[in-house]
Amino acid sequence: MLRVLTRLPRLGRGLVGARWPAAARTIVPAESLALGRRHLGLASPETQVNVLPRPSEGHPHLLAADQSDSATLTLEWSTGQITTLDLAWAFHQCRCSTCVQAGSGQRQRYPPDNALQHNEELQAVRWQPQQGHVELDVARPTPTGLQVIHTVVLPEDALARSLRATQVLADTRRTLTPLNLVEPANLAVHRYTDVVQGDTPQLFAWLDDMANKGAALLVDAPAGDPDARVVDLAARISQPMPTIYGATFDVVATENPINIAYSSVALDLHQDLVYYESTPGLQFLHCADFHETIEGGESLLMDGLAVAARLRDQDPDAYHLLQQVPMTFEKVHYDRALPAHLVAQRPIITADPESGEPLELVWAPPFEGALPFLEPGLCRRYFDAYAALGMVIRESTDLLIEHRLLPNETLCFNNRRMLHGRRSFVLHEGHIRFLKGVYVNIDEFVSRHTSLSQLLGLSLPTARYGHGVAPMW
Amino acid sequence: MLRVLTRLPRLGRGLVGARWPAAARTIVPAESLALGRRHLGLASPETQVNVLPRPSEGHPHLLAADQSDSATLTLEWSTGQITTLDLAWAFHQCRCSTCVQAGSGQRQRYPPDNALQHNEELQAVRWQPQQGHVELDVARPTPTGLQVIHTVVLPEDALARSLRATQVLADTRRTLTPLNLVEPANLAVHRYTDVVQGDTPQLFAWLDDMANKGAALLVDAPAGDPDARVVDLAARISQPMPTIYGATFDVVATENPINIAYSSVALDLHQDLVYYESTPGLQFLHCADFHETIEGGESLLMDGLAVAARLRDQDPDAYHLLQQVPMTFEKVHYDRALPAHLVAQRPIITADPESGEPLELVWAPPFEGALPFLEPGLCRRYFDAYAALGMVIRESTDLLIEHRLLPNETLCFNNRRMLHGRRSFVLHEGHIRFLKGVYVNIDEFVSRHTSLSQLLGLSLPTARYGHGVAPMW
Repeated sequence: MLRVLTRLPRLGRGLVGARWPAAARTIVPAESLALGRRHLGLASPETQVNVLPRPSEGHPHLLAADQSDSATLTLEWSTGQITTLDLAWAFHQCRCSTCVQAGSGQRQRYPPDNALQHNEELQAVRWQPQQGHVELDVARPTPTGLQVIHTVVLPEDALARSLRATQVLADTRRTLTPLNLVEPANLAVHRYTDVVQGDTPQLFAWLDDMANKGAALLVDAPAGDPDARVVDLAARISQPMPTIYGATFDVVATENPINIAYSSVALDLHQDLVYYESTPGLQFLHCADFHETIEGGESLLMDGLAVAARLRDQDPDAYHLLQQVPMTFEKVHYDRALPAHLVAQRPIITADPESGEPLELVWAPPFEGALPFLEPGLCRRYFDAYAALGMVIRESTDLLIEHRLLPNETLCFNNRRMLHGRRSFVLHEGHIRFLKGVYVNIDEFVSRHTSLSQLLGLSLPTARYGHGVAPMW
Repeated sequence: MLRVLTRLPRLGRGLVGARWPAAARTIVPAESLALGRRHLGLASPETQVNVLPRPSEGHPHLLAADQSDSATLTLEWSTGQITTLDLAWAFHQCRCSTCVQAGSGQRQRYPPDNALQHNEELQAVRWQPQQGHVELDVARPTPTGLQVIHTVVLPEDALARSLRATQVLADTRRTLTPLNLVEPANLAVHRYTDVVQGDTPQLFAWLDDMANKGAALLVDAPAGDPDARVVDLAARISQPMPTIYGATFDVVATENPINIAYSSVALDLHQDLVYYESTPGLQFLHCADFHETIEGGESLLMDGLAVAARLRDQDPDAYHLLQQVPMTFEKVHYDRALPAHLVAQRPIITADPESGEPLELVWAPPFEGALPFLEPGLCRRYFDAYAALGMVIRESTDLLIEHRLLPNETLCFNNRRMLHGRRSFVLHEGHIRFLKGVYVNIDEFVSRHTSLSQLLGLSLPTARYGHGVAPMW
């Protein structure tokens, strides 16, 4: 008996700001397999090079592909899973050299040209283990009988990615276990030169710590131009992500700061630049100077997803309300070289609408801005929920990571997941505390982490990146 | 009688990818005003400089602020509107110099420190026209009676921004009229040097055309380094937005292209880089060389929102389904200098869940990627809807803007709203077609357009930017 239970990917309420729709699909191992494989012995069509460099460790392998009826086929996987595919799906996903440009991997057939007319039939399904792909002959009726109009080519690795995509969407269901959370006492440490000049495994180890633990500390950077230090780091992933603060920025106390960070006051835990549609992903803060006589100024980090999970446990109503009512975040500041007027509306908490697991926390009180007028009753409840979250953050001292940066150290963290801050400090004349900062785009970080994982032959990563589940299929 | 109808901002189904929650709030002019203003004559607290440089033309003015009861106050506007504010709202939005840092405009009080205890009372409400702000004395009971714990300062312009925010959210309801659509026969033309070296009104005119018409053509750029041409343009807004293709990119036919654009084939209408969380906003394509003997290669543009509106009218079911089932967009390409593995899932159409108006169209068939497995029945309907949209695009020739770029011309368009493409061309030996391209971040474009509009004393813009209504309050 073959059972494949499917559900429509649901775009749930409250998912504004997250791009991972909730979906659930249960794939039940078959008790028996449908029969009907037909080998017609046609010449194998030319195929595009495989998308991924080589199968990952633990990659499911395709065992068989069989025609079910004139419009569907089934795939049997080494994991015991059975997948049913519709002809329309297969036709769209074809990766033959006509459908996909070999060099770029881009699709070359545009709708409506590649639309089915609903009189097509699957004429043959061939699993070609040597070539590593499944071929489907698609035929249309003509006065002289069925005629093959296209041979669809589905590489095994592309099918495995779709299998994974289906699972990744279902994985948003999984419980946030302590293993997913950052261990405060365990800030990962790497050598700066290993990351910038080292080999791929050394580079990957740093990326993987930021992906899984949310943060990493680099030590022993060579002295010299601090701008080059952070730009070189960003270049190991992609490039600096420029913002209204420039390609890099200086965190140093000044008289009339254009940002609170550029003073000596304490910075409570928060995230940076949440008024951008895509809030910067990684942040690197390189300590260029921090005189030992300066009191205070310790750097602080806290896992925002862990905080959100605590609020859910302690005050479910607050957790719910912070998903429903969006906060305004803004940088509206005209008294600067380039006036800024950036405004975003997003909920403070985004959770999986089915499991209720937190997917993203956005916490940046300094940048909360002009709110639309709210109904008075709702208003009071909303600000109570907001204060409750603030209290959880303040009281979660067990989650606090505290570190006083030494010169030539670099604090690296995922700004989408980790809250950061610093203790206030007292400057003595002639002494300075000077950090050089840079951001890296979240998509480019995920791309680098995922592709290096592939190139190293590792399993695809399963880390959360603070904006839902990372797109790793 | 005072009636203020409010509704909770609703985070509607299908809003993944859009950040503008649907909200409706009807503010009905009062027939009479509540009484109860109390002037206690306290010294005016120090206030932060106004957020916006000066009131815009048509800016609503505050006429009065009155206490309603111990927890609410009402505002009366020059437009006849009446707004009721809760104490919790006002407390959060306070912009006195204790709550907000004067230089940066950032908020300095963090929850839970600024949480109300629910025993506070409004003791006085003062509208101070000379200072341009409303003051609220907030008191708490003590053994010796009520004691003022804070004087909230609400500048008139900040209140006007919240009034506007409330309206902007409601404005997503408005009908997409032909006035909002791009007139194909009317591609706006500006001189390159007016934009790069001209005054603020000349710069603004170019930005405003891109905001309202989706595109503009620049002519008569000085010859020379094409990279400098596009970087100088981006610098008039903010800076180039770097992507996996670099800070700028060359569109020129090559042998083994890493992108279909880098060949001579036709490019059907599409958008670029939709696999980024924040798809690039503006795109500038500067024509460095395009020999007159080359046949074909004309540039094409089409308004994606107009296309989406047509699909809604012609095939409402397809329009609905394309909002419900997300498409996968990706760049998974290992055979390049920096391997790329970027994947995003988003619906092809995002519409306002209440009015059904299209807010964003994402159309990029070359970058459609590995789909999760879909239920066969749904699958067939989905790809039919997808083909129907493709047919609307193909048949909407009346919306097509076609222009053959001349050397030293620059095509500028909003990549979030406009589809672009080109006709195929035939190269003769020794002749080239070479465009230099650059992207600009959508938030930085909106920021520049909005702030220049303010600095010029114009009304705040009301354009759509292809990701819902722009955040212009």
